[in-house]
Amino acid sequence: MFTSQPIGHITSPYKNTSDIPKGLGAQHQAVGVLNLLPEFEPGLTDIEGFSHLIILWEFDRSQGFELLGAPPSDNRPHGVFATRSPRRPNPIGLTIVELLRREGANLHVRGVDMLHGTPILDIKPYLSSIPSEKLRRGWLAEAESRQQK
Amino acid sequence: MFTSQPIGHITSPYKNTSDIPKGLGAQHQAVGVLNLLPEFEPGLTDIEGFSHLIILWEFDRSQGFELLGAPPSDNRPHGVFATRSPRRPNPIGLTIVELLRREGANLHVRGVDMLHGTPILDIKPYLSSIPSEKLRRGWLAEAESRQQK
Repeated sequence: MFTSQPIGHITSPYKNTSDIPKGLGAQHQAVGVLNLLPEFEPGLTDIEGFSHLIILWEFDRSQGFELLGAPPSDNRPHGVFATRSPRRPNPIGLTIVELLRREGANLHVRGVDMLHGTPILDIKPYLSSIPSEKLRRGWLAEAESRQQK
Repeated sequence: MFTSQPIGHITSPYKNTSDIPKGLGAQHQAVGVLNLLPEFEPGLTDIEGFSHLIILWEFDRSQGFELLGAPPSDNRPHGVFATRSPRRPNPIGLTIVELLRREGANLHVRGVDMLHGTPILDIKPYLSSIPSEKLRRGWLAEAESRQQK
């Protein structure tokens, strides 16, 4: 296996977990910056052509993991692999952001939901979507449906 | 930072890198199984409700990283963070699969593009898509356009 290394850190408006919008209908429109370490800048070549990026990052302020837990969007427990819980066996978070512009080793993006200073592990281009009519969203769709009643 | 730990391994029809469809228009319809270690099975609770899953896994047969390289789908070099190259600073792969069925700690899925025996790092529910009309796909769209001429 491998030991993770940060390729950079996130400049985010969120300083505390409680600042981050959570639960059903939470919107993530916050603008932030992915500050890559200078030595990784060549790895960003041609990234400007992509409108959306997948960011993998580390839940660096989360301790241990919990296989069953109730997420902020439901009062019922679900398996960790059916949720976005930070308490995962490998503490890797995933966020899809919109790329606004690049300035050297810094990517200005919309849609951050990470804490300020979060270590970035990887950036990948977002290449294709599953059409929404083909998606089933399990307990999350059920929780949304209960909320609307 | 953290040291990765496998939560399971992949049963895949692909034994060698050369077996995996690559390049422009490559289709990933192969069926495989995500074999979780028994102790992680409770983490799968309620996962059956989701049609698609995001699998994070380790490029365990890749050595080192390369910040610029030509992918199989183009003859021009691009930055590693604008490609799906296996030679990344953190050797984490990402594949979106369709969940066919669950048998205990084993998830039968369609869409595997990993080698047999690949360590699984994380499973996350696929919750929403960026509408295709909002996506720009940079060098990949250009390479596809050149191929069609």
